[in-house]
Amino acid sequence: MSDEVVIDGLQYANWSPKIFDEMRHGGVDAVHVTIAYHEMFRETVANIEAWNRLFETMPGRLVQAFTGDDVRAAKASGRTAIIFGAQTPAPIEDDIGLVEILHRLGLRFMQLSYNNQSLLATGCYEAEDPGLTRMGREVVEEMNRVGMVVDMSHSAERSTLDAIEVSQRPIAITHANPARWHAAKRNKSDTVLRALAETGGMLGFSLYPHHLAGGSDCTLEAFCAMVADTAEFMGVERLGIGSDLCQDQPDSVVEWMRVGRWTKKIDYGEGSAAAPGFPPQPDFFCDNRDMPRLAQGLRSIGFDAAEVGLLMGGNWLRFFDQSFGAAS
Amino acid sequence: MSDEVVIDGLQYANWSPKIFDEMRHGGVDAVHVTIAYHEMFRETVANIEAWNRLFETMPGRLVQAFTGDDVRAAKASGRTAIIFGAQTPAPIEDDIGLVEILHRLGLRFMQLSYNNQSLLATGCYEAEDPGLTRMGREVVEEMNRVGMVVDMSHSAERSTLDAIEVSQRPIAITHANPARWHAAKRNKSDTVLRALAETGGMLGFSLYPHHLAGGSDCTLEAFCAMVADTAEFMGVERLGIGSDLCQDQPDSVVEWMRVGRWTKKIDYGEGSAAAPGFPPQPDFFCDNRDMPRLAQGLRSIGFDAAEVGLLMGGNWLRFFDQSFGAAS
Repeated sequence: MSDEVVIDGLQYANWSPKIFDEMRHGGVDAVHVTIAYHEMFRETVANIEAWNRLFETMPGRLVQAFTGDDVRAAKASGRTAIIFGAQTPAPIEDDIGLVEILHRLGLRFMQLSYNNQSLLATGCYEAEDPGLTRMGREVVEEMNRVGMVVDMSHSAERSTLDAIEVSQRPIAITHANPARWHAAKRNKSDTVLRALAETGGMLGFSLYPHHLAGGSDCTLEAFCAMVADTAEFMGVERLGIGSDLCQDQPDSVVEWMRVGRWTKKIDYGEGSAAAPGFPPQPDFFCDNRDMPRLAQGLRSIGFDAAEVGLLMGGNWLRFFDQSFGAAS
Repeated sequence: MSDEVVIDGLQYANWSPKIFDEMRHGGVDAVHVTIAYHEMFRETVANIEAWNRLFETMPGRLVQAFTGDDVRAAKASGRTAIIFGAQTPAPIEDDIGLVEILHRLGLRFMQLSYNNQSLLATGCYEAEDPGLTRMGREVVEEMNRVGMVVDMSHSAERSTLDAIEVSQRPIAITHANPARWHAAKRNKSDTVLRALAETGGMLGFSLYPHHLAGGSDCTLEAFCAMVADTAEFMGVERLGIGSDLCQDQPDSVVEWMRVGRWTKKIDYGEGSAAAPGFPPQPDFFCDNRDMPRLAQGLRSIGFDAAEVGLLMGGNWLRFFDQSFGAAS
């Protein structure tokens, strides 16, 4: 595995030197990190400023990646590349010009909606899904132009199919699993996954317990069998990891993700009144140090070494190369 | 001159295809353009968005430059490189982290003050000049780190001398003339110019009438004789053009420059109640098309061809190479 790049397609941890050490320990060469949920533009910039301080103070450990080659350089120098993404389109507010501004600042993924209706698309918890909005279509075109990946991880079915159709470049579902395996609202139908695969898009497999059959009790074998099943109908080249690891976060953070400033009540999202916080991780994937274990599990289920390399990061790296630059 | 790069160290025109055509006509390869006076961060970003639209719609004419090599590439492709700068530190508000953010977006020059006291330094119209502030010293260090040039064109004497001393990298006075030639508040003392030259800094000669002996009636010969005199005591390598051309702007714009939102009265700055607007340009430099005439005037006053090449842009290009990257 040492020649193969290891990439996690989504994390939102409570970043600390401990976690960055664990990334190196687990051989993680690049992570797509969430820098904004409900933060508007200026708040998102403040979050980028905080990342800049981490890059400045930990130059031997971390480096921001703007391109696939930056990931290769990070790996070559034993550092972890950080790739920015947003889980809602709040950072662009109502201003399409902010797409290019945030791309310049390094934003490479943006979800068109989170759980709710956004200015661009519908979230998976809305009762109705009217599909991509007028602004949504414009923003997809602009994201295509500058090289920002459309991410539909939290979006509703019709909006997701619209995005796959409207986008001139492959899109991503960075962190979700097939609904055929576990019928959670956040997991994706065969229709969506087939359209995603046919257009060259990417699915990142989530290790967040609410997305796993069996939840926190899910086993490595069951998870890897699900990957194998998905590879059969999507093709192994369309798949990667998007662990959705939310490590060391207080439960107030999952509340921010779900509630933002859109309600004065509590919304439990994938949780419930009985289990409002972050659920415990399955024991085979507690943090970044478990990446090699995941690779081993994939090998054991029958993938060959080359396929495991693709699943653990090779596919994401190819997708980054294709997706992060300006349209030609 | 065709092998030599032509660079204007400061303009703030009412940008239009007409002006961009004139730049090509005048062989202008790069211009440091002002993108903000009193605009705070979000407004500055909106101004960058407007520039991004120009870059997108005129790809054969314009290109943003982040480095000296971008200027060379622009010249090679017959385009004009645009380099962003701010005339006050308002765009960074009270947040030092915005220095790196704006550098990433392409801001390569920032004045520490305009005519008034800022959070960082004192402007040339204040009665007292206590020198660089606490935040000013921190921001100079940060500008040095990321590669943003400290510009003291409008700053008061002590603040300017402080900036020259505190900055670990050469600074610039992008648009001003020697006070020994014309004793305007905005022109610079021999003390300042000598300290600037001794530390490798750059002076851009202004063609704004209020900075010229004789004002709008200044002749090409008198201007070039002043350049020759300045070259004798600063060295020709320290000098370039910073025309301060404010072409096609309505007088409301000079009022914005001077008044911003800091007073409800009118402040005339370098003008007066009798002449509140933009003064007419001297007849030898009306717009970008007159750059070759300026070069010819410098040749006629006695500079050799190589020196004219340095004065018209070679020095700025060397300075860009030294100044725009992260500190090593």
